[in-house]
Amino acid sequence: MKLLRFGEPGAEKPGLLDKGGKIRDLSSVVPDIAGPALSPAGLDKLRKVDPASLPEVPASTRLGPCVGQVGNFIAIGLNYVDHAEETGLAIPTEPVVFSKATSCLSGPNDAIVLPEGSVKTDWEVEIAFVMGQAAYRVEEKDALGYVAGFCLCHDVSERAFQIERGGQWIKGKSAPTFGPLGPWLVTPDEVADVQNLRLWCDVNGKRMQDGTTAKMIFSIAYLVSYLSRFMRLLPGDVVTTGTPAGVGLGMKPNVFLKAGDVVELGIEQLGEQRQEVKAFG
Amino acid sequence: MKLLRFGEPGAEKPGLLDKGGKIRDLSSVVPDIAGPALSPAGLDKLRKVDPASLPEVPASTRLGPCVGQVGNFIAIGLNYVDHAEETGLAIPTEPVVFSKATSCLSGPNDAIVLPEGSVKTDWEVEIAFVMGQAAYRVEEKDALGYVAGFCLCHDVSERAFQIERGGQWIKGKSAPTFGPLGPWLVTPDEVADVQNLRLWCDVNGKRMQDGTTAKMIFSIAYLVSYLSRFMRLLPGDVVTTGTPAGVGLGMKPNVFLKAGDVVELGIEQLGEQRQEVKAFG
Repeated sequence: MKLLRFGEPGAEKPGLLDKGGKIRDLSSVVPDIAGPALSPAGLDKLRKVDPASLPEVPASTRLGPCVGQVGNFIAIGLNYVDHAEETGLAIPTEPVVFSKATSCLSGPNDAIVLPEGSVKTDWEVEIAFVMGQAAYRVEEKDALGYVAGFCLCHDVSERAFQIERGGQWIKGKSAPTFGPLGPWLVTPDEVADVQNLRLWCDVNGKRMQDGTTAKMIFSIAYLVSYLSRFMRLLPGDVVTTGTPAGVGLGMKPNVFLKAGDVVELGIEQLGEQRQEVKAFG
Repeated sequence: MKLLRFGEPGAEKPGLLDKGGKIRDLSSVVPDIAGPALSPAGLDKLRKVDPASLPEVPASTRLGPCVGQVGNFIAIGLNYVDHAEETGLAIPTEPVVFSKATSCLSGPNDAIVLPEGSVKTDWEVEIAFVMGQAAYRVEEKDALGYVAGFCLCHDVSERAFQIERGGQWIKGKSAPTFGPLGPWLVTPDEVADVQNLRLWCDVNGKRMQDGTTAKMIFSIAYLVSYLSRFMRLLPGDVVTTGTPAGVGLGMKPNVFLKAGDVVELGIEQLGEQRQEVKAFG
């Protein structure tokens, strides 16, 4: 299934994308793509619904972040060798973990608003996973069973806020609109091999990132298990797993986003996003 | 008002502490001490209720974390000069910001469970504030108007996980039971001067921390304003503001918590907590 949320910001309704590419309204079946709806039983219930029986939603409808009521928005740093190298930081021997404020989540095609005073806002295409069941101290071999699905995430990052303002990264990762998520949450049965997906990011039509999840240092199964040793993951938690090479910080000289830029990104089998960059205010 | 949550973990009900020190059940008035109930209008509604009209709850009832549905659990590092000095880290020139997984929140008197493999679990008494209204880019002079109240927070910290496992602190701050919060959320009208409160922490009856919020480097009003430049704070977000000197990491040799230890901590006007430390499993 491809699950999604549509409608005005903060008032999104649950939906799905049918085999014909039409958006269908799931409001009569579940209150939101969130919490219990993400459990194995919740997803089974949705699988039994005939999409053709659901109201069709106009294709022009705004999409929101594909998951609601996110409890924790966790991110993994430096999870591709080529990206670690371009930043000049050491290749990690275990996952680098940080978080993004959940209030930064936005729709896949919503504008990115540069925060006031930002001069180093950067792009990062990433694959994220969404938890479907609570997980604490789970084994890597069992880990994917706790995952509800996968989606495209743009881990927008203000490098000055992230790196030059006191050491912890959350400050540069959390501004409103810094977490476009979606277009859809794709359940694992529809992804042939999550560790072999191409992902890319274009800025103003120029290909900047072109990678594959085959080159992740720590796989998604490993990350679920690893994180679950440090915290209890809960249904609806979103974990975005790091970006391949090609970010603006890695260029000499650096290139950052400015008002009027257009960012287009995607992951094979998981869909695409498009964001216009706007100045603050 | 002193607002609280009582009952079994995950099924807490809203309540308040009346002037006579009795717990009263607020379930008939609000669904939870969370979200809209924390707004100025929500708090006004609670103020109009006569506590004597509410059912009394036995004093022996378990208390949960004093706020529910927490969206972000943010923490400030090194916010007291004496604590920064004891850790050997530089005194920050601007707030050090990190986060704790919201799933670590626990009741004020719940046991602290040492995570598997932990050998460096440490105590940190802190004052936390809870947001009552959304805040993005608010001025310091207006900042306290966005705060629903203050409470005691134990920022339990596993130092090896925090410092020796990849650089970002969230890993050492997020284990289940690492966020005792409460006993109550105290509204600002009941706190004479939030920047002049004594706070302390005893381990096995020995005073380890004895500080005052007068020595915070960055005040609560400053922190609200500062954080709001980097992220949109939402009602129910909890921000714990750093600890004074006297943690186990600051001792020579280091002292850390072990099974059987008892931690008692408190803040003038905000109440006290007591936790027994348990081994994992």
